[in-house]
Amino acid sequence: MIRDRVLTLLREVASGAIDPQRALDRLALDPVQSLPFATIDHHRALRQGYPEVVFGEGKTASQIVAITEELASRGDGFLVTRASEDSRAALRARFASVVLNDAARTAYLPGIEAPPAGSGTVLIVTAGTSDLPVAEEAAVTLGALGDHVQRLSDVGVAGIHRILGRATELAEASVVIVVAGMDGALPSVIGGLVACPVIAVPTSIGYGASFGGVAALLAVLNSCAAGVTVVNIDNGYGAAVAASRITHA
Amino acid sequence: MIRDRVLTLLREVASGAIDPQRALDRLALDPVQSLPFATIDHHRALRQGYPEVVFGEGKTASQIVAITEELASRGDGFLVTRASEDSRAALRARFASVVLNDAARTAYLPGIEAPPAGSGTVLIVTAGTSDLPVAEEAAVTLGALGDHVQRLSDVGVAGIHRILGRATELAEASVVIVVAGMDGALPSVIGGLVACPVIAVPTSIGYGASFGGVAALLAVLNSCAAGVTVVNIDNGYGAAVAASRITHA
Amino acid sequence: MIRDRVLTLLREVASGAIDPQRALDRLALDPVQSLPFATIDHHRALRQGYPEVVFGEGKTASQIVAITEELASRGDGFLVTRASEDSRAALRARFASVVLNDAARTAYLPGIEAPPAGSGTVLIVTAGTSDLPVAEEAAVTLGALGDHVQRLSDVGVAGIHRILGRATELAEASVVIVVAGMDGALPSVIGGLVACPVIAVPTSIGYGASFGGVAALLAVLNSCAAGVTVVNIDNGYGAAVAASRITHA
Amino acid sequence: MIRDRVLTLLREVASGAIDPQRALDRLALDPVQSLPFATIDHHRALRQGYPEVVFGEGKTASQIVAITEELASRGDGFLVTRASEDSRAALRARFASVVLNDAARTAYLPGIEAPPAGSGTVLIVTAGTSDLPVAEEAAVTLGALGDHVQRLSDVGVAGIHRILGRATELAEASVVIVVAGMDGALPSVIGGLVACPVIAVPTSIGYGASFGGVAALLAVLNSCAAGVTVVNIDNGYGAAVAASRITHA
Amino acid sequence: MIRDRVLTLLREVASGAIDPQRALDRLALDPVQSLPFATIDHHRALRQGYPEVVFGEGKTASQIVAITEELASRGDGFLVTRASEDSRAALRARFASVVLNDAARTAYLPGIEAPPAGSGTVLIVTAGTSDLPVAEEAAVTLGALGDHVQRLSDVGVAGIHRILGRATELAEASVVIVVAGMDGALPSVIGGLVACPVIAVPTSIGYGASFGGVAALLAVLNSCAAGVTVVNIDNGYGAAVAASRITHA
Amino acid sequence: MIRDRVLTLLREVASGAIDPQRALDRLALDPVQSLPFATIDHHRALRQGYPEVVFGEGKTASQIVAITEELASRGDGFLVTRASEDSRAALRARFASVVLNDAARTAYLPGIEAPPAGSGTVLIVTAGTSDLPVAEEAAVTLGALGDHVQRLSDVGVAGIHRILGRATELAEASVVIVVAGMDGALPSVIGGLVACPVIAVPTSIGYGASFGGVAALLAVLNSCAAGVTVVNIDNGYGAAVAASRITHA
Amino acid sequence: MIRDRVLTLLREVASGAIDPQRALDRLALDPVQSLPFATIDHHRALRQGYPEVVFGEGKTASQIVAITEELASRGDGFLVTRASEDSRAALRARFASVVLNDAARTAYLPGIEAPPAGSGTVLIVTAGTSDLPVAEEAAVTLGALGDHVQRLSDVGVAGIHRILGRATELAEASVVIVVAGMDGALPSVIGGLVACPVIAVPTSIGYGASFGGVAALLAVLNSCAAGVTVVNIDNGYGAAVAASRITHA
Amino acid sequence: MIRDRVLTLLREVASGAIDPQRALDRLALDPVQSLPFATIDHHRALRQGYPEVVFGEGKTASQIVAITEELASRGDGFLVTRASEDSRAALRARFASVVLNDAARTAYLPGIEAPPAGSGTVLIVTAGTSDLPVAEEAAVTLGALGDHVQRLSDVGVAGIHRILGRATELAEASVVIVVAGMDGALPSVIGGLVACPVIAVPTSIGYGASFGGVAALLAVLNSCAAGVTVVNIDNGYGAAVAASRITHA
Repeated sequence: MIRDRVLTLLREVASGAIDPQRALDRLALDPVQSLPFATIDHHRALRQGYPEVVFGEGKTASQIVAITEELASRGDGFLVTRASEDSRAALRARFASVVLNDAARTAYLPGIEAPPAGSGTVLIVTAGTSDLPVAEEAAVTLGALGDHVQRLSDVGVAGIHRILGRATELAEASVVIVVAGMDGALPSVIGGLVACPVIAVPTSIGYGASFGGVAALLAVLNSCAAGVTVVNIDNGYGAAVAASRITHA
Repeated sequence: MIRDRVLTLLREVASGAIDPQRALDRLALDPVQSLPFATIDHHRALRQGYPEVVFGEGKTASQIVAITEELASRGDGFLVTRASEDSRAALRARFASVVLNDAARTAYLPGIEAPPAGSGTVLIVTAGTSDLPVAEEAAVTLGALGDHVQRLSDVGVAGIHRILGRATELAEASVVIVVAGMDGALPSVIGGLVACPVIAVPTSIGYGASFGGVAALLAVLNSCAAGVTVVNIDNGYGAAVAASRITHA
Repeated sequence: MIRDRVLTLLREVASGAIDPQRALDRLALDPVQSLPFATIDHHRALRQGYPEVVFGEGKTASQIVAITEELASRGDGFLVTRASEDSRAALRARFASVVLNDAARTAYLPGIEAPPAGSGTVLIVTAGTSDLPVAEEAAVTLGALGDHVQRLSDVGVAGIHRILGRATELAEASVVIVVAGMDGALPSVIGGLVACPVIAVPTSIGYGASFGGVAALLAVLNSCAAGVTVVNIDNGYGAAVAASRITHA
Repeated sequence: MIRDRVLTLLREVASGAIDPQRALDRLALDPVQSLPFATIDHHRALRQGYPEVVFGEGKTASQIVAITEELASRGDGFLVTRASEDSRAALRARFASVVLNDAARTAYLPGIEAPPAGSGTVLIVTAGTSDLPVAEEAAVTLGALGDHVQRLSDVGVAGIHRILGRATELAEASVVIVVAGMDGALPSVIGGLVACPVIAVPTSIGYGASFGGVAALLAVLNSCAAGVTVVNIDNGYGAAVAASRITHA
Repeated sequence: MIRDRVLTLLREVASGAIDPQRALDRLALDPVQSLPFATIDHHRALRQGYPEVVFGEGKTASQIVAITEELASRGDGFLVTRASEDSRAALRARFASVVLNDAARTAYLPGIEAPPAGSGTVLIVTAGTSDLPVAEEAAVTLGALGDHVQRLSDVGVAGIHRILGRATELAEASVVIVVAGMDGALPSVIGGLVACPVIAVPTSIGYGASFGGVAALLAVLNSCAAGVTVVNIDNGYGAAVAASRITHA
Repeated sequence: MIRDRVLTLLREVASGAIDPQRALDRLALDPVQSLPFATIDHHRALRQGYPEVVFGEGKTASQIVAITEELASRGDGFLVTRASEDSRAALRARFASVVLNDAARTAYLPGIEAPPAGSGTVLIVTAGTSDLPVAEEAAVTLGALGDHVQRLSDVGVAGIHRILGRATELAEASVVIVVAGMDGALPSVIGGLVACPVIAVPTSIGYGASFGGVAALLAVLNSCAAGVTVVNIDNGYGAAVAASRITHA
Repeated sequence: MIRDRVLTLLREVASGAIDPQRALDRLALDPVQSLPFATIDHHRALRQGYPEVVFGEGKTASQIVAITEELASRGDGFLVTRASEDSRAALRARFASVVLNDAARTAYLPGIEAPPAGSGTVLIVTAGTSDLPVAEEAAVTLGALGDHVQRLSDVGVAGIHRILGRATELAEASVVIVVAGMDGALPSVIGGLVACPVIAVPTSIGYGASFGGVAALLAVLNSCAAGVTVVNIDNGYGAAVAASRITHA
Repeated sequence: MIRDRVLTLLREVASGAIDPQRALDRLALDPVQSLPFATIDHHRALRQGYPEVVFGEGKTASQIVAITEELASRGDGFLVTRASEDSRAALRARFASVVLNDAARTAYLPGIEAPPAGSGTVLIVTAGTSDLPVAEEAAVTLGALGDHVQRLSDVGVAGIHRILGRATELAEASVVIVVAGMDGALPSVIGGLVACPVIAVPTSIGYGASFGGVAALLAVLNSCAAGVTVVNIDNGYGAAVAASRITHA
């Protein structure tokens, strides 16, 4: 579209319908049209088949319905994260085929076009049951992005044999997302066991001096296993997108 | 220059020397050339007559001399901030007309063209003698930006009569920069006395629980006088640029 | 009034009705009367036509009604910020002509005299929809202070072309207020695109390690664009007053 | 009592009823009885006539009633601080003569014996109306400790003439308690105006980067007026006890 | 002087040499002259006989000598705190009668007039030998302010019998200054043993998670002994001034 | 079980039913089976007779009932900590013999086998009544782990004679757990009075700058009594397990 | 080797040289030998051709020489990071073919075997010249890991056109490492421009409230561009390993 | 001695040399003499044979020599921790038999009497070579306290097989001290592998967001292995004393 508009302008210049000086002014006044096409095209290509993502926190159910209706009417799917119980109920009422996940607090409506498939498997590892909602948010997001997901739950480091018993799954993953609260020790152990990319998601699980996940965040930032990267506390969505950037490269 | 290059391209299109499709590709591949002219031109206009600013911290004397030689050779002046004693000596040795300020740790070489004059007077107020180096950095920067500066020193709030005795200077300022460490109380008092813009610079002066200026920073962020804005701790340079944005509007 | 009282005293001295020593004692005992007239007069001049501002947080609806009734009875208008839903309803019930803004949580009753008009336009830029309430608070305040406001919404840096596409509005503003949560990156980009004063308002939008806006606050304090100033987290009101100090200079 | 018991023991030694070695063992096994009498007596003297203080936070209404019934049955009065609305209602129902203060969230029942009167007047200064509950807690506590209290309200530093107009009250105080939130600037100004002891109470008033009173706390710790001391955030009770230690010296 | 000047003005009004309106203008233009005499006089009275205090940190030896020469030439004494070894040597070389204290890092030259004597004794208690420099700063300051000082050293709470063995000194003090680093537990114990005012000085002694005295600062702010007040970390000077405000009331 | 499975495998090798190479592959593919038996056996031995512990925070009543039903059906007992009122009611309804503790928010069902008895007595010391819930959590946990518990309550350091009066109990304890909020001073005093292991539990009791127990946590980490160890804020359960590791050594 | 040893054991079992029970005991006593072969083998495969990495901080030159001599003698190469000037000189003296990088503070000796080549190009983007040392550490590490590196320097967001002008390089990268101090805004802008994995390295560049890189760290954790991951402050080495995990997947 | 003095007093009472009332006054005036004998005796018993410990940080070499000379002259041994190189050299020069440990920065002179032997072995585990100085401080202290020490070094969790390979040592320890910086993950893994008491020492090893050991400290406070206790950052001495309290119970 942008490309078309600039091409039209250039053709008008070529035909003499508009003189070069005025064409220059139009480009200058409306700079976004003359902007890096590569970037924008590439961006659009990237988005082909992906659902739009709506961050549900702080939005009312009716606001979310209004936004998603517009997306759905364009044939785009959507993924709502951090959707309250009310919002999920409202989306269920409005879109018969929406897929809700209560643990992950997500609502997902696939678009007309399927998302491009990611290569390999993204393994989501959690230390304790309290980390599961964040892991679920990652899993749902990965599904919506076309990735294949496998889960490894309840393998905290205080019982190290549980992790070691799952060497096969670990070795076969393309990317590992490690969701861990409290002491944030699990990503370091995993990071030392696998060669593939490891993305840590510290969670706000814990009490006392866990400071809402800061303890786990600092631990993973200081991981003694080199090459472990981190996303924000409880940000299962962000970890999924990061993983999907890898599997779609 | 950029404008010229795009104009040349458009003229080639107009003359048929290049066809519209290929012209489009050249714009697309080299996006910065086709970028918001308005912004860039405007930016350049803004910079007309201003010295380039070099942040001296963490650079060696010889690195700074190399950078400034290039600027000077273009006829541009320069302002080096946070220049170490060594760097200032090296600049003095290299540029006969450089103006050094030891308290402010600056070195200033005016450009060929004078900077556009700011309107009115920028008043720099300090609470104690320890705040003076930061105030000096602001004053030198303002001078280099074409602003007229007045100083009001040693008027801390523990002796409130000292501030009140300077009502005339306060009332006549276009902008007031308040440099204050320790309890950061001065900007609130000044903010209640004047109607003009007030920019607070918290300083790292203090000890114990001043935490390198954080106490003063938090105080000014929470100022009970509405409309006081803040820059980073010890950032006399930033306050000066902010003030100059106002006097050059 | 104060001026009148001191003048009366001086005339009594002149007429011999009171001797100088006793006149001195009266000045000394009642110091505020003898206080900086310039400052106070100037202050009053500044306030001419402005509504009184009531900070609504922590006050009950009935307390707010009581305060505003007194203001309204004097012919002064008022602006209530951080007004709860209850308070807004109570004000609506009491003052037929009050202007409520639910997003901004404000209630505004213009005074009899119009506020003096600010010069130019204050542009309020927001990154995401969650930043809008803070932007609205700024917009309502600016309106009450006599300023002309324009909005630029949903131009976060993750889609940089959206900002670049609005070069004209940016270039024409007298002051830009940038409201930004999460990574607080927008003020730096804007600060590099415009020459006018830029006031950043970090917002408490975000989760995990955003720490209620501290992440955005630190980012803007450390902005790589020189001359950006900052107000407290979510302080749309303070940014508006700061902008208005500039447009009314 | 303790004194009596040791004396009895010593008399038994004197009479030969118990031999010195065994007496030594009894002293050693039961050390508190042989403890610093001076300290304990002195302590008791100090408490003569003072009500017992019950910290109400985290206690249920029925727990508080149980504790205060025991105190009242001994003829001691009591002061309950941080009493919830429920607790205050329960105390009103149980003790006809209890004095409630809703702003201060206190309930006070005087003891049979009046507390010793403190010397002079304790002046409680507040910056804004939001600081009043903390000031009230201090005032009620001082009353219960036998002190004479005067108040100076709404004299924040953004309108410095309001403070200066109250020089007489300031000059006549024995101790000044300054209650201040937001920027915590008021104690510095007051500290420079008076020669008597100044006790600052930072309050949790404010928003954004006030961090529940930490901004004000840091400001007062770094006060540029020498000799200002500080108590914990919102600790009106503690400031009152500190002031009373001075007026009862 | 100020008083004299206003009196002269009033006499000129009385004599008709100046008319009331012009007298009013002169008062208004030069507001500090018409300022709260009570406050200023009272302030001066307070300062009678006190040495001026120079905060030595961040000042060079020659700067300090220059400042103190001016003070000494007026007949005023001085107290330099946080004086570096160089500064102390320079002051020794310049003023034969200056009293240096290496542990406290102070230099003291008494003024011509002796300071007014404080009532009673200020007891300075320290937990460990590392707290002594801060205690010394307090002691030297108190001496310069006319106070009688007694010391109680090395009585940390890990050996509680050492404190209890000093009940007499504790009971006889007018004010107790408790200097304590590490866990900051000593002020709570002392606060429970004495009835007089207790001022805590947290020190930066400690390692690991002592955070330069923050651990001790927080402990004393949260003291379970009511009525303990606090000054900034390592601020022996401030504690001394606070104590002296009490003993000179 | 694991041991049995490997033994079976080895016997198959011995009997020739499986060849060494294939046995190696099976060990390699399923590594946990071949894992440190010593550790696992030893671990199991450790657990013999201990109830399983379920952390109740963030789990619904029905989730907790489901988990505990499974444990009870295996003949294992359970201990639920941080159980909400709802959860405790649901457990009471489901398990007739469950022992609830409302203060500690625990529910305990003993297993069929009694836990091994710990040596000596674990003394739990608290400063104030607000610390009791955390102390109770420790006490209940210790009971479930087979330890003998004694309590020493309301012995805060502001009334030091209360602690000293309990020398006998202190001297006879095998381990002392000190539960302390506010200034966290008690563990230092206790640590200096006893020779046995001392475990400090900072609590979130306090207000203002107690920061949810951080003040107490820092105090105990910086304890001037050597050899005091610390667990997380409010972690009565963790302190109990640590103590039990000592008494079961 | 491990595999061999277990195989030997199993063969002894098969041959009857050792009975199954004793074989079990040997496996149990020496658990690491029976550990997850897959993991270990896979790990070794991963390391094939990689140099060993020595973290130089806190190690003396002679310690580093000793460690590297051992590595070199085995035919392994090495990479020393955070090597002081002394250490680099000592390594230069000892290993003729060592490659030093003063900006990156690294010393690199390739191993006999070349590292496996990574796919595509890792693009390292920096905002300012002060970020270059961290970028260099990443670049050197990537070279040692077999990756192809491209640099994009001095493209800070305050001059957004500089980034946009490099769309081609951005679009062609396999992974982008963004090194950014101060406001940490660059990763958000880059993250919105590219579809590939983006790894942010906050740097300790900045002053005042940058807190040694914490401002930038928080900004990148809260990036408004989804899927940006983060490593520790100044951790160029970690970012390189993370990128290499992606390019070697 | 104390005991003797009180016994003498009691005998004087018994003999009638002093009457009970006067004896009471003497006990009261000099309270420490009448203090908890049990505690003091018990304390002394505890100390029998232990060296006195001198914290060397912040003390000059000559101060340390003076203190230790006095100790040595009484026949007591001493342990100096955090002794600078100068101090160690001075002690070597003064005491021929002093045992220096450069890594631990300790100087140890055994007393005449040997310390009582602790039961079992204290195992000191470290993750990396940088943690060794802290581990050494613990080891030297334990030796001086009569404990038998074993070391397990370089077993960080990023190479989990290294820990698992040392199951025997872990299983045989009486107490395990785990010294760990960076992510502080090791204590959680160890805590899950052993049943005995585990004391974690976070170290200040790390960079970036390790904040001088705070990251590791928070991790261990939030350990997912129950019953792990913590001492201050880098406090090898404190961990040793805590361990010795256990082995000497």
